[in-house]
Amino acid sequence: MPKRLPIEYADASPEVRAVYDDIMATRKTDWINNFWKVLAHDPPALRRIWSNIKDVMGPGELDPLVKELLYVAVSASNGCHYCIASHGAAARNKGMSEQQYSELLAIVGLANETNRLVTALGVDIDDRFL
Amino acid sequence: MPKRLPIEYADASPEVRAVYDDIMATRKTDWINNFWKVLAHDPPALRRIWSNIKDVMGPGELDPLVKELLYVAVSASNGCHYCIASHGAAARNKGMSEQQYSELLAIVGLANETNRLVTALGVDIDDRFL
Amino acid sequence: MPKRLPIEYADASPEVRAVYDDIMATRKTDWINNFWKVLAHDPPALRRIWSNIKDVMGPGELDPLVKELLYVAVSASNGCHYCIASHGAAARNKGMSEQQYSELLAIVGLANETNRLVTALGVDIDDRFL
Amino acid sequence: MPKRLPIEYADASPEVRAVYDDIMATRKTDWINNFWKVLAHDPPALRRIWSNIKDVMGPGELDPLVKELLYVAVSASNGCHYCIASHGAAARNKGMSEQQYSELLAIVGLANETNRLVTALGVDIDDRFL
Amino acid sequence: MPKRLPIEYADASPEVRAVYDDIMATRKTDWINNFWKVLAHDPPALRRIWSNIKDVMGPGELDPLVKELLYVAVSASNGCHYCIASHGAAARNKGMSEQQYSELLAIVGLANETNRLVTALGVDIDDRFL
Amino acid sequence: MPKRLPIEYADASPEVRAVYDDIMATRKTDWINNFWKVLAHDPPALRRIWSNIKDVMGPGELDPLVKELLYVAVSASNGCHYCIASHGAAARNKGMSEQQYSELLAIVGLANETNRLVTALGVDIDDRFL
Repeated sequence: MPKRLPIEYADASPEVRAVYDDIMATRKTDWINNFWKVLAHDPPALRRIWSNIKDVMGPGELDPLVKELLYVAVSASNGCHYCIASHGAAARNKGMSEQQYSELLAIVGLANETNRLVTALGVDIDDRFL
Repeated sequence: MPKRLPIEYADASPEVRAVYDDIMATRKTDWINNFWKVLAHDPPALRRIWSNIKDVMGPGELDPLVKELLYVAVSASNGCHYCIASHGAAARNKGMSEQQYSELLAIVGLANETNRLVTALGVDIDDRFL
Repeated sequence: MPKRLPIEYADASPEVRAVYDDIMATRKTDWINNFWKVLAHDPPALRRIWSNIKDVMGPGELDPLVKELLYVAVSASNGCHYCIASHGAAARNKGMSEQQYSELLAIVGLANETNRLVTALGVDIDDRFL
Repeated sequence: MPKRLPIEYADASPEVRAVYDDIMATRKTDWINNFWKVLAHDPPALRRIWSNIKDVMGPGELDPLVKELLYVAVSASNGCHYCIASHGAAARNKGMSEQQYSELLAIVGLANETNRLVTALGVDIDDRFL
Repeated sequence: MPKRLPIEYADASPEVRAVYDDIMATRKTDWINNFWKVLAHDPPALRRIWSNIKDVMGPGELDPLVKELLYVAVSASNGCHYCIASHGAAARNKGMSEQQYSELLAIVGLANETNRLVTALGVDIDDRFL
Repeated sequence: MPKRLPIEYADASPEVRAVYDDIMATRKTDWINNFWKVLAHDPPALRRIWSNIKDVMGPGELDPLVKELLYVAVSASNGCHYCIASHGAAARNKGMSEQQYSELLAIVGLANETNRLVTALGVDIDDRFL
């Protein structure tokens, strides 16, 4: 089964363009990255996923940089190269330093180690944590 | 194969007690949680993993609360209940609000959705991200 | 360690050819895809895995297309590109539309999100489900 | 960190009740399962996830039973007991037989085996699949 | 959806009993563990999976204890408590010491850490490894 | 976000060179593989991870070849190509035969199948295993 290729703005339907426009306006940028252009083969999914991202990554009690760091950490843990590249770039734009990225990766690695140990050992949750 | 049970301070070898003492001194607390007490069946692993945690979660460019949030996010993504409970408690102690925890979980959920979509679709990394 | 390369029919042992022949006869096709040609380095594994696939994907109460859709969904969830390509092609041959594939991917993404949320939150199973 | 407990209809805010009402109306049922009642601690997440489920699991080109089977398959592959129980119950209500469930589980198991083998062996995608 | 309960020998069909008998004869034991008794709801799956286990875990170039250690390691990495318990017991019966189990767990934990780091960092394979 | 590139010995700081020297001395080799050269962007992580590997993979009750086989099995299960290549090469150097590698992969595949089945079915642990 061939891969779905990115749909450029010029080739997009009005429904898809409306989402592209909202992405660019929200992010104050003049381009659309490949994830959205591939998702555009399924316009309702494009609109739905973008709406989710806009809600979840929008203003809240967590700092915008922290939100991106969390997204990068989960993506690094799951080994999604595209997501590391895209959310890593977003984190950089919001101020993530090279040293902060190193610390994030160290936590991702160590959490994966201890998550497996704890689960394999079947450690019971301490009463004080409940 | 029976599970390894927690080794209490009173029953621990001097080698294990030395690590327990350092954990309590570093964390300014008077108790040891079950993870360490189960790891204590393998004293070199206990010492090694504690040393890693102390290094990785110690002072750096990321805020201590952010470090805990990242640990909780990876643990939630991996479904490690013990780790969510223990690092969630640490995050609470460092100031995580109920609302911040909600935002963290929303990011974990959404990242797991988009990580799978991006990977399944084989989206190519945009030049601008390289 | 170098990767194992595909073993072509012309270079295959009689034991391997017998499996290749059965694959082609069962699938009513004249070629063998790379998975089997790489597995052929271990003839008992080749025979065993093929026998499993033949049993599991053969006639049953689930429609053949539905069986392929389930295989594609698990493979997409696990991020196995080869498996998405090969079982996606099989699903196409059995009638999967582009729109059905979009719906499948949407379910895979959403299930990965809610699976993580449910597990992280430790939601108890409702009595009515037991 | 204590687990979030289900919020019952009687104790829910108007915003949460509105979602509960829509879930019951859409599903033609008179109760709410625990997933939603735990998500209700974060009303925007409750509304957002429900909206996603309603869209993705609603009418489309895939049969409603097939959609539930795909959800169950991904959930079984990810080991989410709650999700297997809840979507398994939904699949039962839509007609899934015990034998169909057996066939689904066999595919989930086998796909997890071959997904790992294919990925570990680094099998190249055949030209015919592209 | 209720869980499938173990089917005891006394309640099993002749087809299922034949597999139970072969398991007990092969393992030189007088009982059947729950995995097989739950799988017995799907007799072809029971026969198929047992046949796979018998082939893969039977005599080969790897020592029987090493085979069990590998099974335990993968199961620990995947967090399957039942599989750790059952294959851990088998490994014990074949001579695994408490210290060897500790070393195995340490490798599982560390491999999960470095697997994530290597994948997240996108490290290129050295020519010498190809 | 661009990938971190390998740091060669000639370009490395004295702190990094000290680790490189220890890796080469410990492994009785004259080169450093890419994993360490990429980790070198974060010298404390380089030193820490190397120290862990040296401890965990060093002499113990498990045979050095068995330790490498366990590392390869977990890496194959997790789909880390780099780790399969590097630890596979190490296993080869310690005597792993092509047939042993086939047996290892068969166990990895089958364990992933049965781990998922056991977890999805929620099989209860037999009293005899406790």
